[in-house]
Amino acid sequence: MSDADRLNDDVTAPSCKKIKFDHQTENGVSDVKIQLKDFIPEKILRNNTNTKTVCVQGKFISKSGVAIVILEKNVFKEEDLNDKGYFSPETVLETYFQNDIYGNYACFPKSSINGVKATIIYPASEKHIIKYSQQEVHIVLETPELYEKLTLPFIKKEQFNLQWVYNILDGTSEQDRIVHDNKCEKEGFVLLPDLKWDGLTKETLYLLAIVRQRGIKSLRDLNESHLPLLRRVQEEGKKKILEKYNIRDSQLRIYLHYQPSFYHLHIHFTYLRHEAPGIYAEKSHLLSTVIDNIEMMGNYYQKASLPFTIREMDNIFDVYETNGYVQRIKPNIQNTELIDK
Amino acid sequence: MSDADRLNDDVTAPSCKKIKFDHQTENGVSDVKIQLKDFIPEKILRNNTNTKTVCVQGKFISKSGVAIVILEKNVFKEEDLNDKGYFSPETVLETYFQNDIYGNYACFPKSSINGVKATIIYPASEKHIIKYSQQEVHIVLETPELYEKLTLPFIKKEQFNLQWVYNILDGTSEQDRIVHDNKCEKEGFVLLPDLKWDGLTKETLYLLAIVRQRGIKSLRDLNESHLPLLRRVQEEGKKKILEKYNIRDSQLRIYLHYQPSFYHLHIHFTYLRHEAPGIYAEKSHLLSTVIDNIEMMGNYYQKASLPFTIREMDNIFDVYETNGYVQRIKPNIQNTELIDK
Repeated sequence: MSDADRLNDDVTAPSCKKIKFDHQTENGVSDVKIQLKDFIPEKILRNNTNTKTVCVQGKFISKSGVAIVILEKNVFKEEDLNDKGYFSPETVLETYFQNDIYGNYACFPKSSINGVKATIIYPASEKHIIKYSQQEVHIVLETPELYEKLTLPFIKKEQFNLQWVYNILDGTSEQDRIVHDNKCEKEGFVLLPDLKWDGLTKETLYLLAIVRQRGIKSLRDLNESHLPLLRRVQEEGKKKILEKYNIRDSQLRIYLHYQPSFYHLHIHFTYLRHEAPGIYAEKSHLLSTVIDNIEMMGNYYQKASLPFTIREMDNIFDVYETNGYVQRIKPNIQNTELIDK
Repeated sequence: MSDADRLNDDVTAPSCKKIKFDHQTENGVSDVKIQLKDFIPEKILRNNTNTKTVCVQGKFISKSGVAIVILEKNVFKEEDLNDKGYFSPETVLETYFQNDIYGNYACFPKSSINGVKATIIYPASEKHIIKYSQQEVHIVLETPELYEKLTLPFIKKEQFNLQWVYNILDGTSEQDRIVHDNKCEKEGFVLLPDLKWDGLTKETLYLLAIVRQRGIKSLRDLNESHLPLLRRVQEEGKKKILEKYNIRDSQLRIYLHYQPSFYHLHIHFTYLRHEAPGIYAEKSHLLSTVIDNIEMMGNYYQKASLPFTIREMDNIFDVYETNGYVQRIKPNIQNTELIDK
């Protein structure tokens, strides 16, 4: 696993606002006159129903090469929430139903206030296609036996490169980013902003605690011998974040991922209201629950069946597929059809 | 808690399809002819820029009482991603910039394909206003002692009305919506689309299993005697969803909320890739984990410390605040400022 994979914590979130500013050419703008009406869609790469964003692959009429069009519904502008905008007579309202005090309607505002952000990449490379493609995700329930038989040999075989982690711990990299450093070999850890965070905006606060102790691959390895370490990370992490960022522990989400993106124990700290990637129940385990589980049962994480999600393009998917524990979705029925009721 | 709260599973995401079906009156529909153009907006209660949803408080011209209008941009329908829809000559395109292979545009599709979902609540009560307002959220770690001392008395005192649940189970309401019905009193349950789901779009699949057995308030009450019931919900729910919607169990997220929105045991089924509201680690417990925990330790849910989130305006917040377990954020430092480093 390379350093670049550090940020690859997110399977589903869109990356639709990423525009390249470099290499602007004098005549780059006027050379290509692109029209959406000339776009021939061929494949829906991704359709995010939460953020209302869609990525479509296709081509342009009488042009060679692949194009990607990314459409994202605009947020509501507050200046349009009045009798000239959404509440104007031009807005068409169709009633779904009305019942007692509740009514549900389809509403068609005039086009000029109801825009969509469009990004066009043309010509797009194979890398662009992969980047903007939705990948099929599956959930697997990893029993202790499956961990021993499939996951652990996979982790060992892949021999993830942890040099970048050791560089941080040993003081040879990213030292200016460190927020807190407890140098105890057994219970110490380094706290630093996750690369996804700008280090400034409270709403998106995201820090990472990397423990100094080596050899703890993940949640699966934790037992009662690690309780002092886990409690220290929890207490010192909370205290430092209150001091430095003025956020109380009741507004922090403190958790571990399973599977993690790298196999050296680390703990995530995010602002509770921030919908950070990978905070879903099938991926994240609150540190308080982890500590509580181990307090109740020392070998909880060696006995428990732990769910995790895998994308069909992940190498570990092949391992579980070959052994019959998960099945690939056939490409031709991928998320494009409505359900036939 | 009233019937209207049945869908109140979600702190941050929009609640835009929340419609009350019961107690429909003969003339309820025709009595009130509501027009968006008569709406006078007074206050933006919440503007979610992630899900593109806005909640506005106001009133109607020459009518008394408060109204709430909730607008949510529609998801992209895949059948509109063609030369009759978004890529038709009717779509107006304005260039922000074009640079090398990347271009960024404002796009104005014709109104008929670019709808907005509108929900109107009129007349709205103070409770509705609170529900749709942006609120500070806190996480609380509920030990078994705190459950007994604070949460349980609160649940009992509030005397949540479950009549609408019994109406479904007894066959007097919403019978046309039922997807599966196992009538066994001990292990039976009813499976039906959640009101947030349109019942059609695979990408946003969301069903609810409501157990027939009465008196199981939440996760906290579950023990080994409930294992047959839980396994039945899991197995029959998966099977039915495969049959009817052609979605395999490896692409389903099956979970319970803690705290739940109503205190009669129910289990959520969503499409794994759908970022449904309330699926975060601090709120959702996968059914497979619940079963596994009880199998390992019969009284797990009576012994465990369970985290839950509360909004400052929730009644239960006062209970925990009064007893010193959580502190209100001062309004003037609410999430609006950058952190002063």
